[in-house]
Amino acid sequence: MADTLAAPHLDLASWLAERRRSHVFEVERISLPDLAGWSFDASTGNLVHDSGRFFAVEGVHVSSDYGPVPEWWQPIIRQPEFGILGILVKRVRGVIHCLLQAKPEPGNVNVLQLSPTVQATRSNYTRVHRGDGTRYLDYFVPPYRGRVLIDVLQSEQGVWFYRKRNRNMIVEVHEDVEAQEDFLWLPLEEIWHLLKVDNLVNMDARSVLSCLPLALPDWLGENEGACDDVRRTVRDSFAGAGPPRLSTERLLNWFTEVKAGYRTSVRRVPLAKVKNWHRTEYEISHEDGKFFSVLAVSVRASGREVSHWTQPLIAPRGEGVAAFVAKRIDGVLHVLAQARVEPGFVDVMELAPTVLCNPDNYHDLPRSDWPPFLAYVLAAGPERIRYSALLSEEGGRFYCAQTRYLLVEAGADEEIDVRPNYQWMTLRQLTDLLRHSHYLNVQARSLLACVSSVLV
Amino acid sequence: MADTLAAPHLDLASWLAERRRSHVFEVERISLPDLAGWSFDASTGNLVHDSGRFFAVEGVHVSSDYGPVPEWWQPIIRQPEFGILGILVKRVRGVIHCLLQAKPEPGNVNVLQLSPTVQATRSNYTRVHRGDGTRYLDYFVPPYRGRVLIDVLQSEQGVWFYRKRNRNMIVEVHEDVEAQEDFLWLPLEEIWHLLKVDNLVNMDARSVLSCLPLALPDWLGENEGACDDVRRTVRDSFAGAGPPRLSTERLLNWFTEVKAGYRTSVRRVPLAKVKNWHRTEYEISHEDGKFFSVLAVSVRASGREVSHWTQPLIAPRGEGVAAFVAKRIDGVLHVLAQARVEPGFVDVMELAPTVLCNPDNYHDLPRSDWPPFLAYVLAAGPERIRYSALLSEEGGRFYCAQTRYLLVEAGADEEIDVRPNYQWMTLRQLTDLLRHSHYLNVQARSLLACVSSVLV
Repeated sequence: MADTLAAPHLDLASWLAERRRSHVFEVERISLPDLAGWSFDASTGNLVHDSGRFFAVEGVHVSSDYGPVPEWWQPIIRQPEFGILGILVKRVRGVIHCLLQAKPEPGNVNVLQLSPTVQATRSNYTRVHRGDGTRYLDYFVPPYRGRVLIDVLQSEQGVWFYRKRNRNMIVEVHEDVEAQEDFLWLPLEEIWHLLKVDNLVNMDARSVLSCLPLALPDWLGENEGACDDVRRTVRDSFAGAGPPRLSTERLLNWFTEVKAGYRTSVRRVPLAKVKNWHRTEYEISHEDGKFFSVLAVSVRASGREVSHWTQPLIAPRGEGVAAFVAKRIDGVLHVLAQARVEPGFVDVMELAPTVLCNPDNYHDLPRSDWPPFLAYVLAAGPERIRYSALLSEEGGRFYCAQTRYLLVEAGADEEIDVRPNYQWMTLRQLTDLLRHSHYLNVQARSLLACVSSVLV
Repeated sequence: MADTLAAPHLDLASWLAERRRSHVFEVERISLPDLAGWSFDASTGNLVHDSGRFFAVEGVHVSSDYGPVPEWWQPIIRQPEFGILGILVKRVRGVIHCLLQAKPEPGNVNVLQLSPTVQATRSNYTRVHRGDGTRYLDYFVPPYRGRVLIDVLQSEQGVWFYRKRNRNMIVEVHEDVEAQEDFLWLPLEEIWHLLKVDNLVNMDARSVLSCLPLALPDWLGENEGACDDVRRTVRDSFAGAGPPRLSTERLLNWFTEVKAGYRTSVRRVPLAKVKNWHRTEYEISHEDGKFFSVLAVSVRASGREVSHWTQPLIAPRGEGVAAFVAKRIDGVLHVLAQARVEPGFVDVMELAPTVLCNPDNYHDLPRSDWPPFLAYVLAAGPERIRYSALLSEEGGRFYCAQTRYLLVEAGADEEIDVRPNYQWMTLRQLTDLLRHSHYLNVQARSLLACVSSVLV
C-alpha cells in the first residue's frame, strides 16, 4: 500500500492505462430480438430477463402540473432492489485516502472509469449469493469490518429509473487494507484533481464522495495559505462560515411548501401501453426522436474473468447539462437549487442543479420555452465558469450518457429572477441534507462532489 | 386572551362541555348504497366521490418477506393531496402556549376532541378555495404571519391509507392572537395533563405536538425541583443527557440496513379485484372477520354551520395497542423502536412503537404467533406502566378507532430479546428524526407526544 500512496500523477496515468489494457470490452449494438435471455413479455410488452433478475424496462404514465407538459407516457427501468455503493476510507499520516476501483462498464464511452470500492447488487451482498467474489464486501455488510460513517439510500436518475435507490456508504478503517488488482488508494486531494478530468470518476463514486464531508467533518483540513478568492469562497460555503440566506428551518419549510404545491401522479403501465413511443428492430424511441431510446448491446469482456452477455441500455439523446448557478450573497457563496419532479422519485420532488436537461430536446423550440437558466449557463464566459467537465452517467444502464457538469458564478450584483421552486442554498446546507434520503437527486450530488474539487 | 390563559382546569372542563353542547353531531350508520354523492365505479369497483374530490377507497396487492403473511390484498384509502395540520404557539411570560380547537369529527367515539389550530385540506389552503373560512389559515400559508418553526410532511396510518401525508407545522407568533369561538390558548403543561385523558387530544394534535421539542428547544423549561425518578429519566432522555446505546450515525446505518433487507412490493389494484374481501349492503369486510371494515355513515351536524352529509369510514376490529417498551441502559432511558413495513408508506419502512397491532386479529392464534412483545405489554403490571390512555385515531376517516397507548418500563436488569428490526433509541434520538419525513410513523409520533406528558 505504501508504494501506491506515494504514486505521483504519472504513475496513476500509467496504472489506468495498464488497467485499460487488461479490461478489453467489445461492445456492439445488436437488435432487440437478438438479446439473449431477455424478452418482451407477451401480455405486458415489458422487456424482462428470463430469470426475473437484474432489471426490467416497463412503462409509466405521468400527469403533473409541475412542468409545461401536463401528461405523458414513457419507458422506465424498474430495479426494485437496493444495491451498495461503498467507499473505504483510511487516514494515512492524517491524510484522507479512498480506495477506488478501475471498473469497466459497457455503456461508458471509454469503458473503464474509477468507481467506488464496492458496487454490489443485493444478491451480491445477501447470504444467498455471498462469496461470489465481490472484493472488500466484508467492510460493507454486518458485522462491518470498520466504522460505518455514512449509510443512506439515495435515488438515481428519476427520469429513467422507477424508484431506484442504492445505499451510499462510507466506511473508515484503521488497519492496513491492501489494494488488490484494479484497486488504488488515492488521497482525497488527488481525487479532486481527477474529478476535473472528463469521464474518469464514475457516477457512483461521485455520489458517494458527495457524502464525504458528512462522514469526515475535518475533511477540509487546516492549510488555506494558497487559497485564492474563488477557493476561499467555496471552502467557506462548505464550512458553513457566514450566514446562509435562509435558515435551515426556513429551507425545509420552503421545500415542504413546494412539494405540497404540485399535484403529480405516476402510474406504472405495461410497456405495450406506452403511447407515443415505438419499437423497431433496434430500439424503442419517442416519435419526436427526442428524450432517449432503449437499445441493446452485446458485450465481450476479457479481464479478471472472460465473459459474454447481452443487455438493454438506455441511450439519452445528446449530451446533458447539469449546472449550478452560484452567487455570493452577503459574501457567502450560494448555489441555486431546483426543486424538481421526476417520475421515478419515491417522494415527488428532490433538489436538482439549477439546470438539468438534455438541450437537444429543446433545439426546435423558441428560447422562451427553454428550461430556466439553460441559455444563461450555455452563454457563460470562462470568467464565470468555476468548474466544467464532461462526465458519464452510470455505464451499466446508460449508453454513452454524458453530462456537462458546470458551476457558473454570477456576479454578486447580478439580478437573478428566481421562480418559487428555486432556492439559494450554501454548499454546507446542501451537504447536510445528504444525511437523509429524498433530498438531493443524483446529479445534484454528483455536482456537489465536483464543486469540492474547486478547492485544489 | 388573558382571561382564557388564566383559566384553571375547571373552566376548561366547562368550556369543553359548552363546546360539546354547541356541536351536536348525529352520526348514523347507513347502507353503502345510501351514500349520497359516492358510488362504486363501474369498471374498478373503487368507492369514489362524484366530484373526484375528498378521497377514494381503492385496493392494493402486497407481497413482502417482512411478516408472517407473504401476500395479501386489502382495501385502502387514497387521498393524494397534502393537507396542513398546524399549531400556533406563543410565549406568554415565558410560558409556551398552544392554540387548540375543539373540533367535532363523525368517527370520534365522543364526537368532539382537541385538534390543531388548523386542519386544512389542500383545496382549503390553495387560492382556488381561499376564503372558505378556515380560521387562522393565514399563519400557515405564505407569506406566513409568524415564524414557521416546523414544516414537515409526515405519514398517516400506512395500513389504512395509501401514501397519505400531511404537513405538520408549528408557527410561533409574538403578537396577541385572539382565541375565537371553539379555540383555546393552553399552556404546554396543561396540554400534557390533557394527553393523559382518554379520547381528548386528537391524533392530528398529538402528531404536531410531537415536533414541539424540535420547534422550541427550550421546551423543557428550567425547574426540575419536584421531579421524581421516572420524570427525571424521561426528561434526561428527551434532553439527550447521557450516552445513547447507538450513535445516530450507527442508528441510521441500522435503519438503512433493515430497509434494504426486505423485499416488499405494493401494487394498486381495483377494489373489485381485492381477494378475500366481500361487499355486503352495509360493509366491505374480510372473510375472516378480522382487520377492519369499510362502512358508511350519515352525519347531521349543528354547530357553526348546520349541515348534512354521508361518507365512508374505516372501522378497525377492536381496540388497537401502541406501546413502547422502555428500559434504562447505562442509566439512560431508551425505548424500543420497531422498523415496520406498512403498505401505505411512501418509503418501505418507518419506525413504529414496539407493539402496534389490533389484538383481536390474533385472539384465535397461539401466543407463539402473536406479534413480538404483545403478550409482554398486555401483562405489564401497574408498577411498570409509565403512561396509559385510550386515544382516538383520526375521526374524519376512522369509525370509533381507539388505541391503547402505553409506555411500559422494563427493569434495567431484565433481559429483552430483540430481533434485528428492533432498536433501542433515546427519546431525543427519536425526536431529532421528526425533522424529516419517512422516519416515525403516526403512532410513534403520537406516543412520543404522550410520553412527554409523563413530565407533569
